[in-house]
Amino acid sequence: MAYKIVDSQDIEYLRGICGPDKVFVGEEINEDFWRDELAGIKKSPEVLVEVDNADTVSKIMKYAFENKIPITPRGSGTGLVGGAVAINGGIMINMSKMNKILEIDEENLTLTVEPGVLLMEISKYVEEHDLFYPPDPGEKSATIGGNISTNAGGMRAVKYGVTRDYVRGLEVVLPNGEIITVGGKVVKNSSGYSLKDMFVGAEGTLGIITKATLKLLPLPQKAISLLIPFPNLEMAIETVPRIIKSKAIPTAIEYMVRDVILASEEFLGKKFPDSTSDAYLLLTFDGNSTQEIEDSYEKVANICLESGALDVLISNTQERQESIWSARGAFLEAIKASTTEMDECDVVVPRNRIAEFVKFSDELQGEFGIRIKSFGHAGDGNLHIYILRDDLDQEDWETKLGGVFEKMYQKSRELGGKVSGEHGIGFAKRSFLKDSLGDTGIQLLKNIKAAFDPDNILNPGKVC
Amino acid sequence: MAYKIVDSQDIEYLRGICGPDKVFVGEEINEDFWRDELAGIKKSPEVLVEVDNADTVSKIMKYAFENKIPITPRGSGTGLVGGAVAINGGIMINMSKMNKILEIDEENLTLTVEPGVLLMEISKYVEEHDLFYPPDPGEKSATIGGNISTNAGGMRAVKYGVTRDYVRGLEVVLPNGEIITVGGKVVKNSSGYSLKDMFVGAEGTLGIITKATLKLLPLPQKAISLLIPFPNLEMAIETVPRIIKSKAIPTAIEYMVRDVILASEEFLGKKFPDSTSDAYLLLTFDGNSTQEIEDSYEKVANICLESGALDVLISNTQERQESIWSARGAFLEAIKASTTEMDECDVVVPRNRIAEFVKFSDELQGEFGIRIKSFGHAGDGNLHIYILRDDLDQEDWETKLGGVFEKMYQKSRELGGKVSGEHGIGFAKRSFLKDSLGDTGIQLLKNIKAAFDPDNILNPGKVC
Repeated sequence: MAYKIVDSQDIEYLRGICGPDKVFVGEEINEDFWRDELAGIKKSPEVLVEVDNADTVSKIMKYAFENKIPITPRGSGTGLVGGAVAINGGIMINMSKMNKILEIDEENLTLTVEPGVLLMEISKYVEEHDLFYPPDPGEKSATIGGNISTNAGGMRAVKYGVTRDYVRGLEVVLPNGEIITVGGKVVKNSSGYSLKDMFVGAEGTLGIITKATLKLLPLPQKAISLLIPFPNLEMAIETVPRIIKSKAIPTAIEYMVRDVILASEEFLGKKFPDSTSDAYLLLTFDGNSTQEIEDSYEKVANICLESGALDVLISNTQERQESIWSARGAFLEAIKASTTEMDECDVVVPRNRIAEFVKFSDELQGEFGIRIKSFGHAGDGNLHIYILRDDLDQEDWETKLGGVFEKMYQKSRELGGKVSGEHGIGFAKRSFLKDSLGDTGIQLLKNIKAAFDPDNILNPGKVC
Repeated sequence: MAYKIVDSQDIEYLRGICGPDKVFVGEEINEDFWRDELAGIKKSPEVLVEVDNADTVSKIMKYAFENKIPITPRGSGTGLVGGAVAINGGIMINMSKMNKILEIDEENLTLTVEPGVLLMEISKYVEEHDLFYPPDPGEKSATIGGNISTNAGGMRAVKYGVTRDYVRGLEVVLPNGEIITVGGKVVKNSSGYSLKDMFVGAEGTLGIITKATLKLLPLPQKAISLLIPFPNLEMAIETVPRIIKSKAIPTAIEYMVRDVILASEEFLGKKFPDSTSDAYLLLTFDGNSTQEIEDSYEKVANICLESGALDVLISNTQERQESIWSARGAFLEAIKASTTEMDECDVVVPRNRIAEFVKFSDELQGEFGIRIKSFGHAGDGNLHIYILRDDLDQEDWETKLGGVFEKMYQKSRELGGKVSGEHGIGFAKRSFLKDSLGDTGIQLLKNIKAAFDPDNILNPGKVC
């Protein structure tokens, strides 16, 4: 369908409801709002508005609905697949100023927040109350609204699951401007189709989240990290299914290779505790009793040593753990800083197929003559693989990237994997989702989209 | 729309694909298939078929789709809201013979089963492998397909969550007969709208589940139960938010009153460890270290004693725990055996509002002159409240039941509760769901139903 072009009358209307200093057009729109964290997909919205309450969002949405103007909701813009890029122009709503923590309820173990609150603010706030919000994506400056919209995962998914598992209730502005509440503070809910679970992971295409009630847990009192060097990556990763099978319950199992660690050291200007080995597993265990944690990690340490680990470095001080995990958190930025441009593959495969996938994608470097770097969540099968442009010209880059992606997503399907473990589909991964779901699956997704947004005005061109 | 009446040609077709001894008509259909566990809603299907594989389900569904014959999928028939009653006649598919455990995968911690496997079989099977399927509804003879379709909760939801949290992937026959697979063995998934989460809790209205891949956990090595007598129910229930706030993590917190315990003793012919007090909390703690469990339960025992508990009875042998929990598991049957007919309210409210709701519903006994018995999941806010017909005539029963329900569901809404915590909406609770979701919410549900089943032939008349 043809969307209406935003005109001066629309701008006036938006100024009237948002306030004159909250509406930006043309060169007033910072180029940051043209793209997300990976710059491959760029487009300026026709108008950018800043909002601070759900009623304003509702009014904008209703106006857009009546006038057939596309809307793109946006948080911190830390996405990697173009989900928050206004590819059809129209109105971009910057949700990041709706950033109030509204309520902590210690009797129901819930936290209610506006969508613009940053992940780092949530963890800090709840930990001050001796509570815990487990989802732990590397990008701490993402908004919770963005995390919910991509069903973000993070490091602790091995033990604690993903964002979906911690969303109890949502307030959402629908594409027609109506505001609804789904879920609530309740622990169980079997009251009709789970609308809440439709909005989680919908990448802002079914509704705009304006409030979220999150499930909290008591804060585990103790944690320990193990950094375990291996002679090579294959040996490291092949150890993971053995750890899972041992019935130990690690909080996180990450894998990393030396040159990514070196890039991170350079990027942060800080030494990593060890970078003498080719590959590492990084594990965390948490709990409330020392005995519980020690039993777990001793078992796992032994499994690693039996599987060829060179050592087991125990990190039980907060300081040391933070130095390791901050390096881990900087991997993406460090790889990005090492090249001119990059794109990523965020597949998830069954945990016992990771070694095969990583080996396969490593070999593509030689086949295509392109640098590929990876790290990721070995404990949950979610890999982050970066294809680096370096000094390739545009045509070469696009050809090689396309070829590499095609082989990777094909391989993932063969292994029972999925297109995205946690970054979403957005604009960039739509064709791979189509290959993965097939015509029937995609048609169901389109039907669902139409069930919520018949005129396709909310974040159009994303997901399906 | 008008559905096609099943005729002899249809029967012949079904005999051809299912086998002549798997198709039942007229008096061949046992009356058990006319209703579910509560007998209030009764209707015979026109034809009952037994299936043992997904292809057959697909063929039947395709035929029904082409001929506009309604289909009702059915498991063990242990539901309480008429979800598996063929209220429009048509074809009932008995899924309970698709009951094979297909695979346990210890490297990915998954179990793949057919939908007719019983809950009791799953727990037994995985525990033999030192693994654990946490959802623990009272009705162990329910099928896993039924549990997934109602998003069943159960006792352990306090610590472990509900069925939805343990469904990794599904194979589903769509209303047009196509077979699709959603999710898989992967731990994370952000690949488009979560179709899996639409089928979970859809009460067999969006597709027929023919295979499920479930998430398992390592089996906790130790467990202990505490039975805690209180002078009255109010004091017992008011203690629950204090327990939650203390940051202990019990596996289960159930509440029960003396006359329900006495009914259960009579029903089972077995003595409960204690029935001298008016009200009890029953708690379980599990984990892998004695220290961890002891720390938790000592803290909770003290909170209970400070809140007026009369004693704390510790049950740390398997035998003693089983005697308590088997009594708990028999409450529904015991109450049912004590009256002529009954209906139930399965609301869920925020955990700190349970005391208020239970007090409110108790008072309805005097107001309406009707017996009401309750027990439930105090730890997760999900109450099971039974309204007993005793010797009321049909008209009186319907009037009083209607009046009681109206007040209860109204009260639940006021407290931020939901219509159903775990039993679903089915046929019986549709009007209360409508009151709860409002026109906009119900319209979204109807749109979703149409997105999957445009001709409304799969379990029509349920949910919305």
